[in-house]
Amino acid sequence: MLLFHLDKSKQLPLYQQIINQIKQLIDSATWKTGHRLPSSRELAEDLGVNRSTVYRAYQELWAQGYIDCTPGTYTTVRYQKKINNKQISRSDPKINWEKQATKKSKKLFQASKDMIHQHTTGDLIDFVSLSPDPRLFPVDDFRRCQNQVMRRIGASLLQYGDPFGYNPLREYIAQRQRQYGINVSPGEILITNGVQQAFNLVCQFLLEARSSVVVEEPTYPSVLSVLDLYETKAIGVNQEESGLDLDLLEELFKKQQPVFLYTMPNFQNPTGITTSHAHREKLLSICENAGVLIIEDGFEEELKYFGKAVLPLKSLDQKGIVIYLGTFSKVLFPGLRIGWIAANRECINRLAPLKQVNDTAGNIMEQAALECYCQSGDFEIHVKRMHREYRKRMKSALSLAKQCIPSKHFNYTLPSGGYTLWVEAKNTSFTEEALIEKLLQAGVRVAPGSKFFSGKRDIACFRISIAHCNQEEIEFGFKKLGDVLTALVKRS
Amino acid sequence: MLLFHLDKSKQLPLYQQIINQIKQLIDSATWKTGHRLPSSRELAEDLGVNRSTVYRAYQELWAQGYIDCTPGTYTTVRYQKKINNKQISRSDPKINWEKQATKKSKKLFQASKDMIHQHTTGDLIDFVSLSPDPRLFPVDDFRRCQNQVMRRIGASLLQYGDPFGYNPLREYIAQRQRQYGINVSPGEILITNGVQQAFNLVCQFLLEARSSVVVEEPTYPSVLSVLDLYETKAIGVNQEESGLDLDLLEELFKKQQPVFLYTMPNFQNPTGITTSHAHREKLLSICENAGVLIIEDGFEEELKYFGKAVLPLKSLDQKGIVIYLGTFSKVLFPGLRIGWIAANRECINRLAPLKQVNDTAGNIMEQAALECYCQSGDFEIHVKRMHREYRKRMKSALSLAKQCIPSKHFNYTLPSGGYTLWVEAKNTSFTEEALIEKLLQAGVRVAPGSKFFSGKRDIACFRISIAHCNQEEIEFGFKKLGDVLTALVKRS
Repeated sequence: MLLFHLDKSKQLPLYQQIINQIKQLIDSATWKTGHRLPSSRELAEDLGVNRSTVYRAYQELWAQGYIDCTPGTYTTVRYQKKINNKQISRSDPKINWEKQATKKSKKLFQASKDMIHQHTTGDLIDFVSLSPDPRLFPVDDFRRCQNQVMRRIGASLLQYGDPFGYNPLREYIAQRQRQYGINVSPGEILITNGVQQAFNLVCQFLLEARSSVVVEEPTYPSVLSVLDLYETKAIGVNQEESGLDLDLLEELFKKQQPVFLYTMPNFQNPTGITTSHAHREKLLSICENAGVLIIEDGFEEELKYFGKAVLPLKSLDQKGIVIYLGTFSKVLFPGLRIGWIAANRECINRLAPLKQVNDTAGNIMEQAALECYCQSGDFEIHVKRMHREYRKRMKSALSLAKQCIPSKHFNYTLPSGGYTLWVEAKNTSFTEEALIEKLLQAGVRVAPGSKFFSGKRDIACFRISIAHCNQEEIEFGFKKLGDVLTALVKRS
Repeated sequence: MLLFHLDKSKQLPLYQQIINQIKQLIDSATWKTGHRLPSSRELAEDLGVNRSTVYRAYQELWAQGYIDCTPGTYTTVRYQKKINNKQISRSDPKINWEKQATKKSKKLFQASKDMIHQHTTGDLIDFVSLSPDPRLFPVDDFRRCQNQVMRRIGASLLQYGDPFGYNPLREYIAQRQRQYGINVSPGEILITNGVQQAFNLVCQFLLEARSSVVVEEPTYPSVLSVLDLYETKAIGVNQEESGLDLDLLEELFKKQQPVFLYTMPNFQNPTGITTSHAHREKLLSICENAGVLIIEDGFEEELKYFGKAVLPLKSLDQKGIVIYLGTFSKVLFPGLRIGWIAANRECINRLAPLKQVNDTAGNIMEQAALECYCQSGDFEIHVKRMHREYRKRMKSALSLAKQCIPSKHFNYTLPSGGYTLWVEAKNTSFTEEALIEKLLQAGVRVAPGSKFFSGKRDIACFRISIAHCNQEEIEFGFKKLGDVLTALVKRS
């Protein structure tokens, strides 16, 4: 019985080790159908274990369909049909999943290679990630909060939760929204798995197939994917330096009736544009008049570094046409997957059953830990620290951009907050792919501009995010970037 | 300045306390537009705080649009339009959300009053909840695992995660699936927010509007809600004592081509029926022949108490037509929201982009904590404990059912595992509502049978779940139940 190797020092019980090894022998077809297993007495002697251990292993193997035991005869390997055979199912897949897939999920799958988060490998400067620098994560403080709520509240946090979210966190968020002039009660808050789920729920609530919605052009690509999923047409409206072209928008509304407008008034992703108070008032009134709802993505509300703070659209919204999406992902931990929707109570009450159908409820334990973290005052302190740190980083990014980006051939935005700058080539002949490729060769990853557009676009452009980089990396990255852009311009 | 009350012992900074109180005065219209605020010097003296504290509060209030400050003049309350007014937006909602809602979300909202989890209040015996008894939750062991992974791995767990899930957990699940004869690699596992999200992803992948699918009749109501959401027709097929009526199914497939069959072969919810090996083989071959996929919900795979273990359909599946859904909710914590899909790699690769569009990724920190908990061996021990405990509970439930349920007027199932029994009235005249109401009056909550059917049904029936009750409560509950049923039968 050299085939067996039991390790008595392992945590795994001996009978389980026997089971695993016999299964392996059968799965690998070393033991074929009808093969006679040693009797439990023989095997026990060979392995130097108690006979009951082998007996138990055989019982389990029988229950799992691996072997046949008939009283009075030998134990044998069971007819193989009963066991799924890895080799067969892999090399000869009978189901054509491409054929089974819906049209929308086919499209998504085609696009998914770009979409699956590409993590930085090697020594590349990561100007792609919009996830805050993990070196700034308050891991220990949060760990203590998790501990605290698990000790203090315990089991009830681990039951199915309220689909609206953990009530004390809803209260905290409502109170915090008021700091931004958004006057909502806890009943007007629904907690979601980040803005991504929030946007999905809103779409499920409002969009029939073949509806249309308006997005800023360029915009956040994941939003375009969601719209595809709901078979909704995304109408892109051009942005000027000051934000959406409102004249264009008004013209558009005369001809069409989209269900909503999706907008990011602060540090728009990808352009970094922040709109003015006046722009927001006008946008709101245009949408009000046209009967078009507004989905306001306030994803980095806390990170305004320069200039006067501007109130969210939602704070100006008298008629309740604005559905506000917020998140903890961009100033705390993206991995928590905690965001929220702030809207009219009637609207929230209709979104909650959708949340429930989507995934029953959120993770209440994490929501409680987050609430504990917020109430302790640590969150406010952390936000201030992030603000201070990224203000510094953005300042150097902007001064480096001035130094390094050849302004004759490239325009770039001057964001007043957030994480991203947007660069557009002008009067040049190289393609975006060539530009991205050259940057990669120089060790700098940026986000290709084309993926932020709903339609095609000819001008080479890209997004720089400083979320994941410290001062040093920003400096190094911009210098490399400058070298590449300068060389490209000379050559073209 | 009696209006202000600062509490220096509070954690909230003084300037923030000032801000909050001024906001309150403005929000409540105690201070109206144009109201002159005290100068920062005056207020500082009145409150006995540093002038810079007041100055900071005023700056913030200005930034938030509450007040106007022009150099050289007094500070005044800003024009109210800029601030959302709670009273107005509440009493006079301008948006008719019912009109805005899609047809499917309207339907869902109508049904949502039943669906939002009703938690037991008062001293009722809870025979409704399918969430395991929180008194058995291994809260402390799990807390230690959270701690461990936060200390050991830290920040990287709190970044955006892989949409496929945390790799070591995928490995653990794949290995564990093999114990049930399901031969999958980690690449054939996708981690989801419980079975609910798993089912949603499968539907998004496979169902075009107006497709049809087959469900067991009765079945899990949340699955019916999901199908409604995707505008899919649910064709209910009757169950006999041994499971789905396979003759009916074969007949049906001759006339129609549903996309998939959704089935729970173990302790079916609500009936508690477990199908035999032979039934599973036949079901699989019928579906194979008809080209109908199978969604196998193995939600309580671990909880077979009586009789021989039966292998999942997925373990018999040679052609890869079975998509298996599993969960940690029914043997560990429902609140974790961790489940999985086990299927052909091609299928999993197409589900991951959908997961990403739905909510970017799962909570990787919790997945790591769970993996740590599983690898420590604690999970296996916990499952054994749950098995032992609920086997005992189910045994007494079954013996109590025999004693208490008047068998002349009621049939009930004899589940070999899981948490639920199914009771159906026969030869009686009372309605299901009357029955449920009487039970409630006697202090016993059961799940009304009608909500488990896709269509209408005349016979009064209900589901008893023992998940949330200990031996004592089960005993008390069944005695009460017996009294009510006996009284009802006598009266009718």
